[in-house]
Amino acid sequence: MLAFRVHKGKLQAESQPVPRIRPGWALLRVRLAGICNTDVEILRGYHSFLGTLGHEFVGEVVDAAGVSSAVRKRWIAQRVTGDINISCRAHGYKSLCEFCRRGLTTHCARRSVLGIVAQDGAFAEFLTLPLENLHVIPKSISNEQAVFVEPLAAACQILQQVRVASFQQAAVLGDGKLAQLTARVLRTEVRDVVMFGKHRQKLTMARRAGIQTVTVRGDASDAQRVTAKFELLVEATGSPSGFALAQYMTKPRGTLVLKSTFHGAAPVEPWPIVVKEITVLGSRCGPFDRAIAMLKDGEVDPTPLITRVFPLAAAKEAMDYAQKSGVMKVLLKP
Amino acid sequence: MLAFRVHKGKLQAESQPVPRIRPGWALLRVRLAGICNTDVEILRGYHSFLGTLGHEFVGEVVDAAGVSSAVRKRWIAQRVTGDINISCRAHGYKSLCEFCRRGLTTHCARRSVLGIVAQDGAFAEFLTLPLENLHVIPKSISNEQAVFVEPLAAACQILQQVRVASFQQAAVLGDGKLAQLTARVLRTEVRDVVMFGKHRQKLTMARRAGIQTVTVRGDASDAQRVTAKFELLVEATGSPSGFALAQYMTKPRGTLVLKSTFHGAAPVEPWPIVVKEITVLGSRCGPFDRAIAMLKDGEVDPTPLITRVFPLAAAKEAMDYAQKSGVMKVLLKP
Repeated sequence: MLAFRVHKGKLQAESQPVPRIRPGWALLRVRLAGICNTDVEILRGYHSFLGTLGHEFVGEVVDAAGVSSAVRKRWIAQRVTGDINISCRAHGYKSLCEFCRRGLTTHCARRSVLGIVAQDGAFAEFLTLPLENLHVIPKSISNEQAVFVEPLAAACQILQQVRVASFQQAAVLGDGKLAQLTARVLRTEVRDVVMFGKHRQKLTMARRAGIQTVTVRGDASDAQRVTAKFELLVEATGSPSGFALAQYMTKPRGTLVLKSTFHGAAPVEPWPIVVKEITVLGSRCGPFDRAIAMLKDGEVDPTPLITRVFPLAAAKEAMDYAQKSGVMKVLLKP
Repeated sequence: MLAFRVHKGKLQAESQPVPRIRPGWALLRVRLAGICNTDVEILRGYHSFLGTLGHEFVGEVVDAAGVSSAVRKRWIAQRVTGDINISCRAHGYKSLCEFCRRGLTTHCARRSVLGIVAQDGAFAEFLTLPLENLHVIPKSISNEQAVFVEPLAAACQILQQVRVASFQQAAVLGDGKLAQLTARVLRTEVRDVVMFGKHRQKLTMARRAGIQTVTVRGDASDAQRVTAKFELLVEATGSPSGFALAQYMTKPRGTLVLKSTFHGAAPVEPWPIVVKEITVLGSRCGPFDRAIAMLKDGEVDPTPLITRVFPLAAAKEAMDYAQKSGVMKVLLKP
């Protein structure tokens, strides 16, 4: 099969055998895969990952191992997406780590992560995942919607961590893909959601989804010009400078959710966190079931964020294209 | 009266008139004042403060204005300490700011802060504070204990923000004055409190109070050598490098309380906060009544932390002395 693998900071097309599956795992045929900023960061060295890239996907179950033939039959041909964190239980460890024992499999101490840590990912014709990671996609959800389940779940994680509905207003810093999904998710519980971004076109997209927008420059001068302060603010710029501005824009005793994972240090003055007694919440992977329900109920429609679909064979070109200014979600179709 | 004021980054002795009091305010004779690291930071430019330094004190009420003669009489000669944040109500604003309306006077948008922001402080023979800020010191508490109420309240603030008793273990990064008080306060609710510090003598002090200790170097090499991880960790090093190590030492889904306020940026990689979904809590001023109760009940005894008492007239010498290695609390006696 064709797979795109990370080699010395570059994506490389390789012919690979179709992966074998272990008991409790499924073989999936990838139907669509999404390019995420994390993929770009991985090529820059984030997590030192070597292997097949890609963690956003929708696909079909081709085979399942270690289950009864009735169970196997039920799985085959199911359209699914999957949790990207693979727990120590799925890896066959007999004694579970402290996080899996507490049910926090996304924090499993021995986890592999699809296309990110020690687990071949979705920029390929096939991939494998444990059955426990799979989520069936209802018929009413298209593949173009379903490929957003993973990042949408990440946005929904904020709803698990913060009583969002108790806020009158929320702000999102950034206008990229995750920022756009985050603003739409917050909008399901808060009337006034304000996005601060640099790109006119991206802000226009947000306004069409009922989100207010403010144009910023994305540099230190914003702190002088942006006077609005918020009780709830989500930092999703994906850039080191975002943290300082986000901190500045958070009200005393406010909540600042961090969503950006980028490679490198940001020069941060931590004293405003202390003086304003801000609660800073790191927020990563989220509940797939909630994201699927949002798509099914039509609460969020991510498809306007798709800029272009490339055939899998053109993954290198697609990756370059995804990094161009103004480009939002780029998909790969095997 | 004699007062020590900040001038161009230096402490300067000045002869000042005894301050007049406004209605609702009290005139206090300072009996003891404490030197805090924030005082040192202010001389380095933190908050650009000009005025009489000092915010830790115990004193006696000499006069009160704008109250009935019976109330005035009750106040006079009372031994007190006082909340350092002076709210807009105390400043006579008719419409309160949003934080005072919510009862969060320590976050008053128009606050002055004793010896820190636009309010002459305690390194003087007399100071003034609103009556609403005063807390009477019970007879059983000595002046040497009472002068610790303000920093002890800051340590107690953690108990207001986190259900500390629900943790099996807690760690404190730093072995300075605030770290020592913090560890003692945590120790009232958690059996295993571990202090990570650089100074043998200071760690010995902590061990005498039932706190476990680990020696670190306070540089990047600690991240290699310290393998322990904690669910609850308090960063109180007062140094920019503390934040990165604290983040590293906090378990996934753990809580990291920030206590250090220092002037300047720290090079921080925020991604571990996101990946580990850490909750970072800024923590500043705290409940004076709880600190007073702790002293009264003998739960915490801060007096072993006193290294030396100087006469007020020697405040400049005392300030230099307070910055020497191994020196803990330095007091000024007018």
